[in-house]
Amino acid sequence: MSFTLVLGGARSGKSRHAEALIARHPAPWSYLATAEAWDEEMRARIEAHRARRAAGWATVNVPLDLPGALERHALRPALVDCLTLWLTNLMLGQHDVEGAIQALEATLARRRAATVLVASEVGLGIVPDNALARAFRDQAGLLNQRMAARAGSVHFVAAGLPMVLKGEA
Amino acid sequence: MSFTLVLGGARSGKSRHAEALIARHPAPWSYLATAEAWDEEMRARIEAHRARRAAGWATVNVPLDLPGALERHALRPALVDCLTLWLTNLMLGQHDVEGAIQALEATLARRRAATVLVASEVGLGIVPDNALARAFRDQAGLLNQRMAARAGSVHFVAAGLPMVLKGEA
Amino acid sequence: MSFTLVLGGARSGKSRHAEALIARHPAPWSYLATAEAWDEEMRARIEAHRARRAAGWATVNVPLDLPGALERHALRPALVDCLTLWLTNLMLGQHDVEGAIQALEATLARRRAATVLVASEVGLGIVPDNALARAFRDQAGLLNQRMAARAGSVHFVAAGLPMVLKGEA
Repeated sequence: MSFTLVLGGARSGKSRHAEALIARHPAPWSYLATAEAWDEEMRARIEAHRARRAAGWATVNVPLDLPGALERHALRPALVDCLTLWLTNLMLGQHDVEGAIQALEATLARRRAATVLVASEVGLGIVPDNALARAFRDQAGLLNQRMAARAGSVHFVAAGLPMVLKGEA
Repeated sequence: MSFTLVLGGARSGKSRHAEALIARHPAPWSYLATAEAWDEEMRARIEAHRARRAAGWATVNVPLDLPGALERHALRPALVDCLTLWLTNLMLGQHDVEGAIQALEATLARRRAATVLVASEVGLGIVPDNALARAFRDQAGLLNQRMAARAGSVHFVAAGLPMVLKGEA
Repeated sequence: MSFTLVLGGARSGKSRHAEALIARHPAPWSYLATAEAWDEEMRARIEAHRARRAAGWATVNVPLDLPGALERHALRPALVDCLTLWLTNLMLGQHDVEGAIQALEATLARRRAATVLVASEVGLGIVPDNALARAFRDQAGLLNQRMAARAGSVHFVAAGLPMVLKGEA
């Protein structure tokens, strides 16, 4: 079954839109959260996201082994929020990024349940000063391109409103 | 009467597009400018905007009391440029942001004359280093979502060209 | 013959999309590359772009005299990648930016062969701290507006997927 990629900026409403897409399918739904609670700000943000979600969601923290988690939740509609934080975790931990992405692609190709992937668009500002930020921006953009090429549908969300870039609304 | 929200990046042509939307209605038109002339650069920018506008526009500086100004200009088509600078002024002055937004929402719900709100999209670059910039980016994105949910039409402008995200062109 | 403007962020797939648009026309095609290899990172980036392109492309480095190069390649389909780096080179070298843009506009108006211009959208992040970056961001946005106004078609690319803002797909 093909998956949907939901792109958007910070506070664009992309998570909320992705949740609505999953909620079209029968519960229970799996929420695969890749955010790591590095600090108080991040912890608050994660809590706010979790508090907003209705009953029917099972939240799992998956900072690194996203392919494995998708396999373990193979029978349930699953929302991954978000690919860009997963990439951040892989890069900061000096993991094998290319290997992880290929494992994700293989898992996605095998999935039968509904899948929505959320990712951030981070390449539309001024070129960052520092080399690490530029490298991350490049990797994030390339990952979005790879996922969009395989996705059945791609939505770009701005101010809570989705534009369909590919496939169905 | 429902309002139109015009979103866009820096120098995207969003103000010019918003002016064209207002100019479909009979003059005189009110231009509610939220920019504060903090420095020479800002002063020059405000002057350039003002100089471009044709006759028919009455420009009012409204750094903070946007709801009040919209009430005072209740009978005229009004352009607010822009919500994001208004939010900046509220945050920098440590005003009650939530109260101000609710007052704006109430005023907009009562308006009968045409209204166009301009806002910046600032969440599509790399995550900012400093916490204040992140907090501002979050607030700006959330404000855009709230306004977009109530707007009759939402346009996203890039390189001077509008995309319709909601409602009519 | 009218030209096409392809806008997008970093690693959005805008160059690849532009190459596909040119490849609809009979080879040989001219690739007018404006990137200057300031450092190793940039050199690697330029090489990766060049290596990806198939046979049929003649690559020319044009950091500054883009109007002249377009004249010299008047009979061939030409891709300019990208306008934003050209603007960077003009600004860093303290050249006459307005004069150069007017020369580009005049050259484009005379062209008979297919032309695709790639440009970066850089105005959708948070306002940059430093004045030079703000000035560059403004100039880049204004250049995009000017080019979009004259283009026959304008595409915005995100995650490798084009949205048509004007003209044809």
